[in-house]
Amino acid sequence: MGGLLRPDEGDPVIVVNENGQSPVMLVCEHAGKVIPRALGDMGLSPEDLTRHIAWDIGAEAMARGLADALDAPLLLQRYSRLVYDCNRPPESPDAMPKMSETTRVPGNEKLSAEDRLARISEIYRPFHDRAARLLDERAARGMTSLFVTIHSFTPVYKGVRRTLDLGILHDHDARLADDLLAAFGGARDIVVRRNEPYGPKDGVCHTLNLHAAPRGLPYAMLEIRNDLIARSAGQEQWAKRLSEVLGALPVTQARRVAS
Amino acid sequence: MGGLLRPDEGDPVIVVNENGQSPVMLVCEHAGKVIPRALGDMGLSPEDLTRHIAWDIGAEAMARGLADALDAPLLLQRYSRLVYDCNRPPESPDAMPKMSETTRVPGNEKLSAEDRLARISEIYRPFHDRAARLLDERAARGMTSLFVTIHSFTPVYKGVRRTLDLGILHDHDARLADDLLAAFGGARDIVVRRNEPYGPKDGVCHTLNLHAAPRGLPYAMLEIRNDLIARSAGQEQWAKRLSEVLGALPVTQARRVAS
Repeated sequence: MGGLLRPDEGDPVIVVNENGQSPVMLVCEHAGKVIPRALGDMGLSPEDLTRHIAWDIGAEAMARGLADALDAPLLLQRYSRLVYDCNRPPESPDAMPKMSETTRVPGNEKLSAEDRLARISEIYRPFHDRAARLLDERAARGMTSLFVTIHSFTPVYKGVRRTLDLGILHDHDARLADDLLAAFGGARDIVVRRNEPYGPKDGVCHTLNLHAAPRGLPYAMLEIRNDLIARSAGQEQWAKRLSEVLGALPVTQARRVAS
Repeated sequence: MGGLLRPDEGDPVIVVNENGQSPVMLVCEHAGKVIPRALGDMGLSPEDLTRHIAWDIGAEAMARGLADALDAPLLLQRYSRLVYDCNRPPESPDAMPKMSETTRVPGNEKLSAEDRLARISEIYRPFHDRAARLLDERAARGMTSLFVTIHSFTPVYKGVRRTLDLGILHDHDARLADDLLAAFGGARDIVVRRNEPYGPKDGVCHTLNLHAAPRGLPYAMLEIRNDLIARSAGQEQWAKRLSEVLGALPVTQARRVAS
């Protein structure tokens, strides 16, 4: 009881391009779909463990391309969100969900306080500690950070088809989201929406509120429909497009004080 | 350069009553006025290093009494806020202030990136990591946390006399502050105000926004005029009064979802 990860299973966080000089800092909480061996298959089929309920399909590859194009640092989280959803606080029932979309998650149905604390301490905490440390280091050097998280969503959720391509999400601070929405305003080939397919009321702004808001940093969460970035051609295309938009933002304006 | 605290100087955080069973969790960022030996006197007089610019006079003793009366855990930060103000993010110029009220702080005037990072890594980060870990542990056990920070303010600031006795501060989530203001509403012997003598616009809600808001926990920052709690009689009186008010709150209501 207690310990979750074995010594050879590795840290939950992968840091890509740590010393990237872009003002943009990228975070991908649902990059991976690894299940710690101690949890077996969590009572799920191999198919379920590769579906969107386990991870954000395409997000890691797209985010790596974007980090490369921008020269931005990128933090990836390796373990499946079914084990711990790093975009949820330990207080949230969704952090270790008993049900994901319409699928029961047997491996989360009978967790003791020790089981929960092991996942919090070994996955959630190291991931967010690493994000905080990177922000600390950048702040100490006087670097601006525009905090951007990368996610993907399933085209059909609980039987309903979603019509947007890109969601730009935010909570109380809309500065960066406003700039991004303005930049995408003229796009005729894609549908871009504010706080869709989720928004702050759904509890999806945890990482933004944990790192960016308390520091006064502009932030946004980007949600791309996963069929658009499931393969390398789409990943490269979206990395290029987002890097052009993010790279052209008036960064100095983005540092203005929130109203 | 680099390292700040010597091995015998001790951790910045003191945890009091770690396993307290109250739903209230207390935090006191400006409890102490210790200056790490490596920083000498920071160019300040012994008088300046004991004034309110260095710490929150009376806050630790009052908070200890309150923790005891409530059976609440309490986190105290030992080092002077002139070294690092743990209620400010590393991005804030006020984190290591060059000027405090009307007093120059020579020891903060020529900080290198390494100097800044040492203070962030050795004071700010361990203090807030400890707060996060305690909240994690409580969450894993299914405990409610009402997050309350304890501060004191000087009766005269930049030459202006302040007329309130108690300030109840909050940012976007007013649940707990509303409950406290209602509870103090009938008080005739003290003046209690919302978001005075500071408010969220002054950047004083960092700790609340770092720990409580991202977890969805109700929070409040209490600011007591320091002449009221400078001596033990006042400290005991305020600990008793605040414990009665906090102890009588409808805790279950405080867990309702924010609107």
